[in-house]
Amino acid sequence: MEFLTGKKEKEVLDLADLLSDEQTGKEVKTNGAVLSVRDMGDIAFVILRKRDGILQTVFEKGVTEADFSQIREETFLELTGVLEKEARAPHGVELRVKSVKTLSQPSAPMPIAVSKWKMGASLEARLDMRPLTLRNIRERARFKIQEGIARAFREYLQKEGFTEIHSPKIGAKGAEGGANLFKLEYFHRPAVLAQSPQFYKQMMVGVFDRVMEIGPVFRAEKHNTKRHLNEYTGLDFEMGYIDDFTDIMAMETGFLQYMTVLLKEDYAAELSILGVELPDTERIPAVTFAEAKKLASEKYGTQIKNPYDLEPEEEHLIGRYFKEEYGADFVFVTHYPSKKRPFYAMDDPADEKYTLSFDLLFRGLEVTTGGQRIHNYEDLMAKIEKRGMDTEGMEDYLNTFKHGMPPHGGLGIGLERMTMQLLGEENVREVSLFPRDLSRLVP
Amino acid sequence: MEFLTGKKEKEVLDLADLLSDEQTGKEVKTNGAVLSVRDMGDIAFVILRKRDGILQTVFEKGVTEADFSQIREETFLELTGVLEKEARAPHGVELRVKSVKTLSQPSAPMPIAVSKWKMGASLEARLDMRPLTLRNIRERARFKIQEGIARAFREYLQKEGFTEIHSPKIGAKGAEGGANLFKLEYFHRPAVLAQSPQFYKQMMVGVFDRVMEIGPVFRAEKHNTKRHLNEYTGLDFEMGYIDDFTDIMAMETGFLQYMTVLLKEDYAAELSILGVELPDTERIPAVTFAEAKKLASEKYGTQIKNPYDLEPEEEHLIGRYFKEEYGADFVFVTHYPSKKRPFYAMDDPADEKYTLSFDLLFRGLEVTTGGQRIHNYEDLMAKIEKRGMDTEGMEDYLNTFKHGMPPHGGLGIGLERMTMQLLGEENVREVSLFPRDLSRLVP
Repeated sequence: MEFLTGKKEKEVLDLADLLSDEQTGKEVKTNGAVLSVRDMGDIAFVILRKRDGILQTVFEKGVTEADFSQIREETFLELTGVLEKEARAPHGVELRVKSVKTLSQPSAPMPIAVSKWKMGASLEARLDMRPLTLRNIRERARFKIQEGIARAFREYLQKEGFTEIHSPKIGAKGAEGGANLFKLEYFHRPAVLAQSPQFYKQMMVGVFDRVMEIGPVFRAEKHNTKRHLNEYTGLDFEMGYIDDFTDIMAMETGFLQYMTVLLKEDYAAELSILGVELPDTERIPAVTFAEAKKLASEKYGTQIKNPYDLEPEEEHLIGRYFKEEYGADFVFVTHYPSKKRPFYAMDDPADEKYTLSFDLLFRGLEVTTGGQRIHNYEDLMAKIEKRGMDTEGMEDYLNTFKHGMPPHGGLGIGLERMTMQLLGEENVREVSLFPRDLSRLVP
Repeated sequence: MEFLTGKKEKEVLDLADLLSDEQTGKEVKTNGAVLSVRDMGDIAFVILRKRDGILQTVFEKGVTEADFSQIREETFLELTGVLEKEARAPHGVELRVKSVKTLSQPSAPMPIAVSKWKMGASLEARLDMRPLTLRNIRERARFKIQEGIARAFREYLQKEGFTEIHSPKIGAKGAEGGANLFKLEYFHRPAVLAQSPQFYKQMMVGVFDRVMEIGPVFRAEKHNTKRHLNEYTGLDFEMGYIDDFTDIMAMETGFLQYMTVLLKEDYAAELSILGVELPDTERIPAVTFAEAKKLASEKYGTQIKNPYDLEPEEEHLIGRYFKEEYGADFVFVTHYPSKKRPFYAMDDPADEKYTLSFDLLFRGLEVTTGGQRIHNYEDLMAKIEKRGMDTEGMEDYLNTFKHGMPPHGGLGIGLERMTMQLLGEENVREVSLFPRDLSRLVP
C-alpha cells in the first residue's frame, strides 16, 4: 500500500529562493514560461515568467546542452544552471543555463505580444483575449493586488471576531426590491440571483454577532459605464452591539490601515511594477452629505441641482475638495437622504429626512455603502408601511427581527472598484478578471 | 472636521478577555443575548450568548440595580458587574450583575427552544426557522468549524504560492457539458450559472502557475439525497509544473494536515461542544479504483456489478475497509475510468481506459475529485474528437491551450461534504447555512 504523507519537497526553486544570497554561484533548478527571447546567435537571453516574478536566463553555445535556436515564447521549461550576479538583469541575477527540459510547447504563436512592458492593445482587445493577455506582467500584477485587498479584509475582520459565512446566491426574491434582479427558473419555480447578501448577513448578526462574506453579487443594471459591472465581488460585513454608525466607519478605517500595511509588506513587487502609491489611511475625514455638497459647490462654483442626490460629478468634486484641503484620498460622506437608502436604513432621529448611513469615497468614487440598520421589529414594520412596500418574500427576514436583534450595522465594498481606485485605472473592467457587462458574457 | 482614525477601543469585553485570570474579582462590562433564564425569585441565573461562547450571569435583588422579573430570552443586554470564580458555571466564572442596559427586546417569544443543548426538532423544522435555530450553541458551532476548514484551505495554499481568484459565475456555456446547468436570461441572451470554476482555474494556471478559489457552484441535479445540494461552496485549486498527479494528492494531504492543526488550535471550543474527534491525516493510503473495488468486494462478500462505476455503497465499504485495516479515515482512490471523467482528464498512458485522477473518500464519502489535466493542445483536441463533442462555447478555453500551458492538475472539494464528514452529520443540509435543494429555495 502506498501512502501520501504531505506536500512533496521539490528541487525546483521559486524566484524568492533564487534571490536569497546563498544560491548565488550554485547550480540550481527552476522552471517557468518563456516570456521573451533575445536571440543573438551563439547566445540568447530568455526571460522566464515565474509566479513570483521574472528571471533572466542565458543560453549559450558550448555551455547549454540544448539546441535553443527554436526556442519560442510561451514554451514551458525546466532549467538547470548556475545562478550568477548580473547587475543589468532584473533583480540583479541571471541563470547561466546548462540543461533544458521542455515541459510543454505551444501549438501556435501568441496572437498578441504579452512580453511588452505596457500592452498597447485596446481594452476590448485585451478583454477578448484575457486568458492570454493576463500573462503580461503588469496585467497580472493587478490581480495580485486585488488578492491582497481581499486578504486584508478577511484577515483584519477575523482578528476582530467576525465569522466568515457563505450565504446562498439563488433565492426566492431579492433583498432590496424587485428591480435589477437576474431571474432564473429553479426546478419550475421562479428564482433570482442575490444582488447582495444583505438580508442574510443581518440575520446572522443574531447568531454570530459579527459576520463577513466575500462573494459574487449580481446586478442586472442596464448601466454601461466605466464603473459598473453586472457581476462583481462584494466584501461585506455586518456587526452587532454597535453604539452608533460611526463604529462601522471606524472598523472600515481599521481595515484600510491594515490593508496598506499588508500591501506594503506582501505585495511590494506588484506595487512597484504598477507604480502604485498607497493612500494615506491614518485619518479619514467625515462630512455630512449636505455639507459635502455645499463645500464642493462653493469651492468649484457648481450648482446644486438636487439636494437629495449625489451625481458622479459631485462625488468627483468632493474627492477633489478633500484632497486639496486635507490631503485626503478617502472621505466618509455621512447622513444620506432617507429616500436614497433602502427601507432597512435607520433614519436619523434628529432629522428623519436623512439616515445614519454613509458612503466612502476613494479618490472621488464611491467604493463603500454602509450604515446602521433598524433593529427593532415595530420600527422596521412602520418604515415598510410608510413606504407602502409589499413584504412578500421577506417573511424570514422580518420574523428574525420579531424575535430580537441587537443594534447593528454594516457595509459593502466593491472589490473591483476599490482595486480600480487604488491602481488609478480608468475602467473597472481592467480589474475584473473576466468582466460581465451588458455586452460581455465571454470569455 | 471630524476624522476617523481606526477601530474604536471599547470597554465591553469579549468572553476571551473575561476568561483571562486578571479580570476575576474586577468590575467589568460585557454584552450578549439572553439564551436562557432560570428565575428563582430573588435571584436569577441568566445565560448570555456571546460570539465566542456562553457566560453565566447572576441577577440578585439588592445587588442588581434593575427589575429583572420580566427578563426574556433573546433580549440583548449590556451588563456591568463583578466577575467571580464559580466552579459550577461554564468556564468556571460568573458575572454578578450590578447594572443592566437593555439594548433591544424581542417582540414575540421564540417559536422554538434554542437554549436546549440538543435541539429536538426535525431537520425540516430547524431549516424552516434557520435564522433562529442557528442561535443554538451547537447548531452555530458547526459553521465556525466550517469557517476553519475554508480558512485552512486558503491559508495553506497561500503559503504554497497559490493566488486567490474570483471567476465569473454567469457564463455563456457550461464547462463540462450542457447537463445539470441552471439557465438564465442575460440581457436577452441565454446564459448559465457556473457548475464549477474548472475552465477558468485551468486557464489561470498559464498566468499565475497556482490558483485557488472558494466560491459558490451551482448544480441543477435532480438528486434528492442526503449528500447533494444544488448550490454549494467549492474549494478549488489548480497547480502547474506538476511531475505527476500524485503532486495534487500530496498537496491535499498537506492541506488536511494543516487543517487539523488549525482546528485544534483555533476551534477547540467548537470541537469540544460538538464532541468532534479529528481524523488522522499523518498518512493517507492510496489505492487504485480497480483494486479498491476488489478489496472491498472480497472482504465484505459483495458483488462487483459494474467494474467502471463506484456506487455510494461501494464507497462506504472502501472507507470501512481502510478504517478496519489501516485505521485510516481518508483514502485516495486513484485511476478512475476514463468514461466516468470529463474530457480534460489525462488518460493513463499505461492503460487508456483509466485516468490519472483520483477521488478522496473521507469516512466512506467522496469529498474531493481531482487529477492531472491534458495540457497539450493536440491531445486535448484528439480527446474531444474521440468523444464526438461539440466545442461550441469552448473557444477561449481551447485557444488558451493552443498558445501553451504547463503540465498541471487540480481538485475540487465540497466544503459542506467535508464539514459533514468531519462532524459526523447524517445530512449535508445540516452544514449548509441556507441549503438549496429540489424543494428548498427559502429561507
